[in-house]
Amino acid sequence: MSLRRAKISIVGAGNVGATCAHWCAAGELGDVVLLDIPQTEDMPRGKALDLMQASPIMGFDSNIVGTNSYDDVADSDVIVVTAGIPRKPGMSRDDLLSTNAKIVTAVGEQIKACSPNAIVIVVSNPLDAMVQQMWKTTGFPPERVCGQAGVLDTARYRTFLAMELGVSVEDISALLMGGHGDTMVPIPSCTSVGGIPVTQLISTERLEEIVDRTRKGGAEIVQLLKTGSAYYAPAAACAQMVEAIVKDKKRVLPAAAHCDSQYGVGGYYVGVPVVMGSGGIEKVIELQLTEKEQADFARSVDAVKSLVATMEGLLAS
Amino acid sequence: MSLRRAKISIVGAGNVGATCAHWCAAGELGDVVLLDIPQTEDMPRGKALDLMQASPIMGFDSNIVGTNSYDDVADSDVIVVTAGIPRKPGMSRDDLLSTNAKIVTAVGEQIKACSPNAIVIVVSNPLDAMVQQMWKTTGFPPERVCGQAGVLDTARYRTFLAMELGVSVEDISALLMGGHGDTMVPIPSCTSVGGIPVTQLISTERLEEIVDRTRKGGAEIVQLLKTGSAYYAPAAACAQMVEAIVKDKKRVLPAAAHCDSQYGVGGYYVGVPVVMGSGGIEKVIELQLTEKEQADFARSVDAVKSLVATMEGLLAS
Amino acid sequence: MSLRRAKISIVGAGNVGATCAHWCAAGELGDVVLLDIPQTEDMPRGKALDLMQASPIMGFDSNIVGTNSYDDVADSDVIVVTAGIPRKPGMSRDDLLSTNAKIVTAVGEQIKACSPNAIVIVVSNPLDAMVQQMWKTTGFPPERVCGQAGVLDTARYRTFLAMELGVSVEDISALLMGGHGDTMVPIPSCTSVGGIPVTQLISTERLEEIVDRTRKGGAEIVQLLKTGSAYYAPAAACAQMVEAIVKDKKRVLPAAAHCDSQYGVGGYYVGVPVVMGSGGIEKVIELQLTEKEQADFARSVDAVKSLVATMEGLLAS
Amino acid sequence: MSLRRAKISIVGAGNVGATCAHWCAAGELGDVVLLDIPQTEDMPRGKALDLMQASPIMGFDSNIVGTNSYDDVADSDVIVVTAGIPRKPGMSRDDLLSTNAKIVTAVGEQIKACSPNAIVIVVSNPLDAMVQQMWKTTGFPPERVCGQAGVLDTARYRTFLAMELGVSVEDISALLMGGHGDTMVPIPSCTSVGGIPVTQLISTERLEEIVDRTRKGGAEIVQLLKTGSAYYAPAAACAQMVEAIVKDKKRVLPAAAHCDSQYGVGGYYVGVPVVMGSGGIEKVIELQLTEKEQADFARSVDAVKSLVATMEGLLAS
Repeated sequence: MSLRRAKISIVGAGNVGATCAHWCAAGELGDVVLLDIPQTEDMPRGKALDLMQASPIMGFDSNIVGTNSYDDVADSDVIVVTAGIPRKPGMSRDDLLSTNAKIVTAVGEQIKACSPNAIVIVVSNPLDAMVQQMWKTTGFPPERVCGQAGVLDTARYRTFLAMELGVSVEDISALLMGGHGDTMVPIPSCTSVGGIPVTQLISTERLEEIVDRTRKGGAEIVQLLKTGSAYYAPAAACAQMVEAIVKDKKRVLPAAAHCDSQYGVGGYYVGVPVVMGSGGIEKVIELQLTEKEQADFARSVDAVKSLVATMEGLLAS
Repeated sequence: MSLRRAKISIVGAGNVGATCAHWCAAGELGDVVLLDIPQTEDMPRGKALDLMQASPIMGFDSNIVGTNSYDDVADSDVIVVTAGIPRKPGMSRDDLLSTNAKIVTAVGEQIKACSPNAIVIVVSNPLDAMVQQMWKTTGFPPERVCGQAGVLDTARYRTFLAMELGVSVEDISALLMGGHGDTMVPIPSCTSVGGIPVTQLISTERLEEIVDRTRKGGAEIVQLLKTGSAYYAPAAACAQMVEAIVKDKKRVLPAAAHCDSQYGVGGYYVGVPVVMGSGGIEKVIELQLTEKEQADFARSVDAVKSLVATMEGLLAS
Repeated sequence: MSLRRAKISIVGAGNVGATCAHWCAAGELGDVVLLDIPQTEDMPRGKALDLMQASPIMGFDSNIVGTNSYDDVADSDVIVVTAGIPRKPGMSRDDLLSTNAKIVTAVGEQIKACSPNAIVIVVSNPLDAMVQQMWKTTGFPPERVCGQAGVLDTARYRTFLAMELGVSVEDISALLMGGHGDTMVPIPSCTSVGGIPVTQLISTERLEEIVDRTRKGGAEIVQLLKTGSAYYAPAAACAQMVEAIVKDKKRVLPAAAHCDSQYGVGGYYVGVPVVMGSGGIEKVIELQLTEKEQADFARSVDAVKSLVATMEGLLAS
Repeated sequence: MSLRRAKISIVGAGNVGATCAHWCAAGELGDVVLLDIPQTEDMPRGKALDLMQASPIMGFDSNIVGTNSYDDVADSDVIVVTAGIPRKPGMSRDDLLSTNAKIVTAVGEQIKACSPNAIVIVVSNPLDAMVQQMWKTTGFPPERVCGQAGVLDTARYRTFLAMELGVSVEDISALLMGGHGDTMVPIPSCTSVGGIPVTQLISTERLEEIVDRTRKGGAEIVQLLKTGSAYYAPAAACAQMVEAIVKDKKRVLPAAAHCDSQYGVGGYYVGVPVVMGSGGIEKVIELQLTEKEQADFARSVDAVKSLVATMEGLLAS
């Protein structure tokens, strides 16, 4: 069995998808396929070619292919799914639910057919429902389907903490759990600066403000940009998960993972700390939560369940 | 004199500008200011914040600021000017001339006032005229004003050569001279693969086809994208020039440099090989050209002169 | 004030010094001067030239100079002092005290004369006394003299924790305080895995074993190597501190820093968490310690004081 | 077929081997096994552990194992063979011939038994004979056995050229052919600076001096170091070849490759430009040489043949 480059496919060649291709290619994580729907015509090919033309300058050897056909996605090792309508100013996450669930279902069917051994990272919104739907559609073992939300949320939180303290972003560790967005559960006992518990460095009140800004982090960018939503950090977050898989790094990251007995969730995707490696979600780490954290997490899980129920209702109708 | 981070300002927060910020920040080349006109309101702040939020994931410490005010640009070490209306499908480079000359003049006046010691890299189109105008407006010594065209053109050429030969992009060296675009002058004797002259590996006919594709490289991307133009490779090209300056690397790169006695140009900006370091264009390298190359170069210089004359006429009227 | 490369000098061209030059050059942190005593003749020049010859392969532009003369060290921004007799199997750290104190004094006098604005990182052993002596000899403000011990100790600890848990080294944060070696003070509340307190993942007993292995980490390598002592990780630790300074990263790192009122130390160098940037030790972070940690830290400080007193006695005699 | 990290084994844990492990691990090229003979006892384990302890600082996840047993080398993807007695001051390369041929034979037999699908990179001296012997011993297809000499020689040449011209090492391309050492054949037509033929920038006389210094590059380092020989650049050269293989980069590099019909060599290993990828030496590039270059190359090949004949005589006796 000889060595080969990883094959990374990205479904959706919008800003998040193309920027994810950028991070993956620049890091020589593997060859990249950037796919979008036939209506986008040559656009994915244009972005892929443009990105390829950066490679002699930046010194990376990655083959980057733009396409409208799943034939090019065949036998991928990792597939990042960014497909779906983006959230617009004023739009709630739930408005996206029905449309995006259908898109994700269609994508999942294609993945199942063309890349039955792939590990799938979903980033489409509303995240917690979309990843559940992807898992159901592909029928893949749960460790091979996961969702990106926690890495991004945590990155925002870490950025705000680094700004607040005037220290390097490299030294901030943090963990956020639960659903993506309003029901995000901060775990202050899992937030540290060079190892030092953040609670020793920032007051509870100020920390709560920072958590709150994090919770609304996506909306803040949407408001500033006026048109479109964040893509640099979301794409970086996906690329980090791809890297953890293709380099089998065993990273400890927050991700939307399928939890059954874990935390008593009972078969839903929610944000939890996991170990990511070449097998996908190799382990869900079960933390001891405080009573308050447990309650918040339970509320967050309930929101996920209700979101999934709503989605399933919409899809069945 | 203590150490400090380089201050890199990017004028224009469109795709080229923001992606240039991306490459510069990710490479920890310095702190980055991303400026756009007041009408863009908070957009530059949104892109800067999004990019900052990628930093904990990618592990870079760069302060990235979005702004509409030149106050934030003050005392920059390097300024990349991407400002100008982008080329649209069907639009010739000359159509952009008048509008972009005025934009570049306005930007140049601001730069002169707020960052009198900066090195300026112009990427606005039509490049050869815009960089001339920037130089004239700022009144900076010629070595502190240059244009990005050759690094991008060469990168496209190297990409196509690597594809043709099935080898690493890292091993292709190439040089293109003259104006940006149709009058680009390939120097086959300055194109090599692992040091091997490309003429030993590719037939003259095939090489000419590849040069031709390179010449139309920007248009090819425009056609594929349908809306907008290339930005990954152009931004990478700018970032490489920024890196050469802030790390004082003494890179040998093709750039639009002010040539007076050199090549007998007589005081115009044209694409030539230069040495780039902390002083900007530290040297213009004078090559022995073949008769054919000389003739092509002369034609290219004439085109630049005529472009500049047209621009000056338009600005004077 | 134009941009320039940082100037990094390394005193001592043995394995730690040369490997530190390697990490610094490969990371393009600046130009590197590798100095050793006249008796080593051309050896530093040989290592510097060999390292330079790796640069075209690895793609870094750093000027690396080997020398026996402090003239080449003049006006350094950062100086790493590895000088001193290495610890040999069976040799206690204290045996080195007198000899190395004299060496460090001689080096300090040279630094004071040739690089009055440098930031000095001492790595000579026994560390806590050597850095105190360097500070005293140079008369530099305390924030411009520090010692490397904590980054290395913590790196060993993080390595063992990553091995134990089967996770990425990137996700382990840890803090060790106090003196280098036997009196090292682990702060379990400042050790985390992806933000998760390590105490949730490893039993107290097992953690104590890992701390103990860390405490003896240098001796373990000495015993395995038979001849010589560790250099890869010690050199990496120095390079990380150099990077924090030359890139002004504001890293939160454990370092031997001069503590006066902080922790009630009263004017000694001990291992504490600090913020490192272009100003050197920009801040000593004062933690709330548990009673047990406080007692251990006090014991460690006492050991440092006694070591310094012994050194001063030896130097005075 | 799931993704996995490459397995890179390095035979010989001396300075070249351990530094090669350093470059490979720091670049996250794969997991690394560092082997030396039983008489070195725990030394390889000590170096491996020291290197592992640098990983949390430098942020790489590579498992590095030190060993005296080929059991740990089993199923390697790439094996770098540095085994052999090093060249000492005053010692000719031929003095090493008999001893090192026996060592390489022993290593080759182990490799054949434990890693029948590996690609082998030989760096033991005298190189051209050792790689021939390795090929013969393993019985591997010729594309899976190669020798490192050209990357190092070329790196030295590029370093000297960059110093001479005051430009970045990144912009120098060069090719050297033939045997390693005195019979090295420079190909001036394959040496360029930012694509520009070096002959346009440096006089023939000066270039000849630089070639001569390159030819004696190893001896220069030996003389400076007094004890031992070069290891930073040789190790970097090996690591670059390993990277070309594990990332399937299709690098165009000079290497000692088995040439049969190519250049009319008739079944010997000599330095030629090749394409390196996951298949090993995927192609030998056949250049048009000038008459002078052909004559020099022929002389170099003769020297290799005579070296191999001497070796075979010594082994048979």
